[in-house]
Amino acid sequence: MSGVASHETVAATDACGPVALLDSPHARLYPLALGEAEITGGLWAGRREVNRRRLLPGAVAHLGQAGNFDNLRSAAGQGSAPFRGPVFMDSDVYKWLEAVGWELGRHREPDPELARQADQAIELIAAAQEDDGYLNSYYQVARPGERFSNLAHDHELYCAGHLIQAALAHSRARHDDRLLEVAERFVEHIDEVFRIAGRPGTPGHPEIETALVELYRLTGRRRHLQLAAYFIDQRGHRLLGPGHHGASYYQDHVPVREAREVTGHAVRALYLAAGVTDLYLETGEDALIDVMRAQWDDMSAGKAYLTGGLGAHHEDEAFGDRYELPPDRCYGETCAAIASIMWNWRMLLATGEGAFADLLERTLYNAFLVGLSCDGGGFAYVNPLQVREGHRDPVERGARRQPWYWVACCPPNVMRLLASLEHYLATADERGVQLHQYAPGTIASERVTGGRVALKIDTEYPWQGRIAVRVSDTPAEPWELALRIPAWSARAEITVNGEPEPVEHRTGYATLRRAWRPADELVLELDMSPRLITPHPRIDAIRGCAALERGPFVYCIEQADHTSEISVDDVRLEAEAAIDEHAIDDPVPGTMALRASGVHAPAHAEPGVWPYATAGVQANGHGTHGAPTPMSLTAIPYAFWGNRSPGPMRVWIPLAR
Amino acid sequence: MSGVASHETVAATDACGPVALLDSPHARLYPLALGEAEITGGLWAGRREVNRRRLLPGAVAHLGQAGNFDNLRSAAGQGSAPFRGPVFMDSDVYKWLEAVGWELGRHREPDPELARQADQAIELIAAAQEDDGYLNSYYQVARPGERFSNLAHDHELYCAGHLIQAALAHSRARHDDRLLEVAERFVEHIDEVFRIAGRPGTPGHPEIETALVELYRLTGRRRHLQLAAYFIDQRGHRLLGPGHHGASYYQDHVPVREAREVTGHAVRALYLAAGVTDLYLETGEDALIDVMRAQWDDMSAGKAYLTGGLGAHHEDEAFGDRYELPPDRCYGETCAAIASIMWNWRMLLATGEGAFADLLERTLYNAFLVGLSCDGGGFAYVNPLQVREGHRDPVERGARRQPWYWVACCPPNVMRLLASLEHYLATADERGVQLHQYAPGTIASERVTGGRVALKIDTEYPWQGRIAVRVSDTPAEPWELALRIPAWSARAEITVNGEPEPVEHRTGYATLRRAWRPADELVLELDMSPRLITPHPRIDAIRGCAALERGPFVYCIEQADHTSEISVDDVRLEAEAAIDEHAIDDPVPGTMALRASGVHAPAHAEPGVWPYATAGVQANGHGTHGAPTPMSLTAIPYAFWGNRSPGPMRVWIPLAR
Repeated sequence: MSGVASHETVAATDACGPVALLDSPHARLYPLALGEAEITGGLWAGRREVNRRRLLPGAVAHLGQAGNFDNLRSAAGQGSAPFRGPVFMDSDVYKWLEAVGWELGRHREPDPELARQADQAIELIAAAQEDDGYLNSYYQVARPGERFSNLAHDHELYCAGHLIQAALAHSRARHDDRLLEVAERFVEHIDEVFRIAGRPGTPGHPEIETALVELYRLTGRRRHLQLAAYFIDQRGHRLLGPGHHGASYYQDHVPVREAREVTGHAVRALYLAAGVTDLYLETGEDALIDVMRAQWDDMSAGKAYLTGGLGAHHEDEAFGDRYELPPDRCYGETCAAIASIMWNWRMLLATGEGAFADLLERTLYNAFLVGLSCDGGGFAYVNPLQVREGHRDPVERGARRQPWYWVACCPPNVMRLLASLEHYLATADERGVQLHQYAPGTIASERVTGGRVALKIDTEYPWQGRIAVRVSDTPAEPWELALRIPAWSARAEITVNGEPEPVEHRTGYATLRRAWRPADELVLELDMSPRLITPHPRIDAIRGCAALERGPFVYCIEQADHTSEISVDDVRLEAEAAIDEHAIDDPVPGTMALRASGVHAPAHAEPGVWPYATAGVQANGHGTHGAPTPMSLTAIPYAFWGNRSPGPMRVWIPLAR
Repeated sequence: MSGVASHETVAATDACGPVALLDSPHARLYPLALGEAEITGGLWAGRREVNRRRLLPGAVAHLGQAGNFDNLRSAAGQGSAPFRGPVFMDSDVYKWLEAVGWELGRHREPDPELARQADQAIELIAAAQEDDGYLNSYYQVARPGERFSNLAHDHELYCAGHLIQAALAHSRARHDDRLLEVAERFVEHIDEVFRIAGRPGTPGHPEIETALVELYRLTGRRRHLQLAAYFIDQRGHRLLGPGHHGASYYQDHVPVREAREVTGHAVRALYLAAGVTDLYLETGEDALIDVMRAQWDDMSAGKAYLTGGLGAHHEDEAFGDRYELPPDRCYGETCAAIASIMWNWRMLLATGEGAFADLLERTLYNAFLVGLSCDGGGFAYVNPLQVREGHRDPVERGARRQPWYWVACCPPNVMRLLASLEHYLATADERGVQLHQYAPGTIASERVTGGRVALKIDTEYPWQGRIAVRVSDTPAEPWELALRIPAWSARAEITVNGEPEPVEHRTGYATLRRAWRPADELVLELDMSPRLITPHPRIDAIRGCAALERGPFVYCIEQADHTSEISVDDVRLEAEAAIDEHAIDDPVPGTMALRASGVHAPAHAEPGVWPYATAGVQANGHGTHGAPTPMSLTAIPYAFWGNRSPGPMRVWIPLAR
């Protein structure tokens, strides 16, 4: 069923980022090699600096305090502390280690203290590994003798997946294979226990699938791909039991090749999708890309928030029914945004279609970026699109970001994406170079026919729409430069050395094939006009509302930008009025804020007054207090809300009638 | 702090229903004695017949299969089966037993088989009790030696509360005190362990508080009232720990006398409120009724669904923030409706204000009644106000009622309310008789100054608004007949012996004081015109929508009443059009259905098409397919949805523009 033939190993790839492709004929696009993309300034350079200076060193203290290291010490026989924390504690260490691997690898002079901490952690992990390769501190310390007895909930294979990904980062970026040896020994053990023994089983929380395909890409050892295929083939046969939320919670209700809807726990669904897409990229099995397209279509048409946030249910951190997208109850876990970015990247590699890069960008600038406070002091786990006056539980509402969590999946996940973000900017092949995301920096490739291509990108994107691409190195013969034109940009203009070029879209990309010369400068101008967004009529929870966007950002209105006499719970937007923009310095210097006309229609609570009125009996304006008054509404990027004084926030604004 | 002085016992009350008052000077109204109210026909007689014939006997089989009886047998040493089910399994037996007690008590010839089953269960419970009075099969069988070690989650005191309430029913209705002896022995043990020993503690799930006050009312033993006060005083000091959802989940975040908002798990909050109101009724402590009013005001103004359903969160079965009332994600647990009815009844007794009887009625006919299928074959646990086309998990959506649940709190709770429903109809005191809920039957009282009052009620309520009250027995001197005028009735007309009487409202009641004569007939005419209901502007999730009501019923539109070409997900209501009514026989004979003008605006999904459009770029009508077409909308009472072919349903209907 898997379509993976039992060959010998094939040649392994060169050093690359998180996703490398073995020149698979099933890919349409190919990631750059390590070091070929750099981000040298702007928003993301700033976020990455926070990651390097604050998040990665800070995580060491949090992992120490929470017991993650102690758990591994107990497993290694270097301590006797009882196991602490949730069953997947090891994965937090692995995600942090993955982030550190990418971060250390891209500096010529890596931070010696961070390197020392990483090396210590690697040594500890190696020491904790059992002789037969098994490695999971929860089972080793708290439940010896019960390995693989609860695949549905105990995350052993999930942790193994993150171990592999950390090992890949240290091997590729630091040329340090110590963790890779640990990971491969564990994987061989898992392979023997499951695939080779023919033991039924699949992980309750997917993650190992995508990691195994990548391990195959690194090592060329086909058994890793076969194990990924084994777990994917086993899924959907209800091996995991019904659990508390039903088999669909872990996508075990229907075989993978028949699953045409995204269902259940969002992070599980999306990591699985990344793995299934990876398997397609290596095997070219049509059934796999077919269900991946169907699931993506289902998700993007009716199960995604405007921000790219995913997961409408708090209860099971799950996708809701189609169009069930309440902004206040949006779960939108930061990890789901990261998993969506990972899946969209693989779909982009598999198809070359800009829609995937568009959703990746939307998710990056909104559902992902909101998960980290501007100063780096806190992470959000839940990211709703509305928080009301007088809300309770600000942490649960995403209104107060926390330095760490008991379930600490999100913080190190943010770190590993930030540390490896340059890998998601561009791709290259014999034909030329494709630019998917825009940031100041450099892009290069050795893969273009004829010789090395090098580009320098100058831009104030995402605040301004001008992206200047300067050719610094080029072969003599013609090659193709492809630039993504985001679907949100109503117009796009391109000049080369000041001369206008006709812009042809092809699946979201403008492509210019020519004999480029050093110092040639292409300028792409995207339309950064503020936009008024209205929802599909079946999204009931935001009926009669509109949202504001500019560039890749979704905007929100926050109490901090309005006087205390005005509650953002009571404002209305004038749909026809012009939207102005202006730069502000708080909370992020250079931020473009928007200003629009609205009205304030106060409608405070009257305690004890039933809030449903009979038409024709009670006044139509029941609940309102005083006449609506005109006002000016200020909106800031959603990603930056909750960084000033606390208060209500909303993305969707009711329209004035 | 409790205000309960340590007196000796006072005189116990006569046989009464679930709530008896010791002629407390703090009550405004007094429940009737046992047998003084009868329901002889109509909707509720039918539901109670289903309860007697199908639900109560059927529960014996379910309790047997689920292990409830086996657990008690193991505790009694009559079996050795390991404990099965959730920790509160005993409470399901007690709730069923309470229902059986009320049911057997009100028949002159009680069902001998049901009586035999009840007696068997009582013997089993008595056998399971430890020598020192302790009784909880979970701890006895599964965790011996660990009693009262996890008050936050293990429901020992909650189960004790339901044991007391079952005992009260058998004592009052059947004059059988065997279970009462068991309950009092357990209560004395609890009293010694906690109050007398001064051990800090309060139940994670309130319920015992209201039961203890009632046990005091039955026995006159003041220590039971003191124990209720003890647990209420202990609450709000975070003795229960933060738990997974924070201390507010079990109302332990703030002392009871400072808690001015309803928060956390809805059933916990409402059972606690019933107990606190009961304590006020006995002590008259102003601080208690003051916070109860504040909480009720908070709940009714912004945390209650139109149906009276409570609990906007699935995750923690909890109240949301004020105005956070998504119809699709409404949890609206059937038990929360029952608990709300219990609390509202006590608030009515404490205040005499019709608003509490209004909310009780709304909850009874909608949020409660929807919890039982028309044929009695299934119970709903969750009761949303909208279910979409293509929804997943019909059980979780309340779209498929189940014969029983693993967590089976709702089914026997439905049974005990149905079995005791006549107790919620009327009250009486020296001044006269007060009618709160209308059903065909008889009402009598010995309490009215001068002699016995007896009334016969003839009505086709809730389908028709005419309520005829015929005096069959009366003292010679004048007394006062009070009739609730529901807030939903725009007009109310009263005649006595055919002569119009002026209707004066006083806190929701029309009061007629006169020298009544046998065969006098009062006729109350309520306004049963269909009503169009609009929501408070801050209830974002139903912006631009209206709902239909008639009499005490909230209506909904269900796919079963519309052709397959029309999806109820796509209909719009014409707000200005007339609403017609007509009788239907399916699913309930005599049901009044409504018909209104609407339009069908098809807006099916386009897979992969982003459902948010830029105004001025994409067409304004994005997502819609074809022109809206006029149509006729049929609405049925929400309580009866989901009894025919499955499909989408909605209470709130978007208005056509």
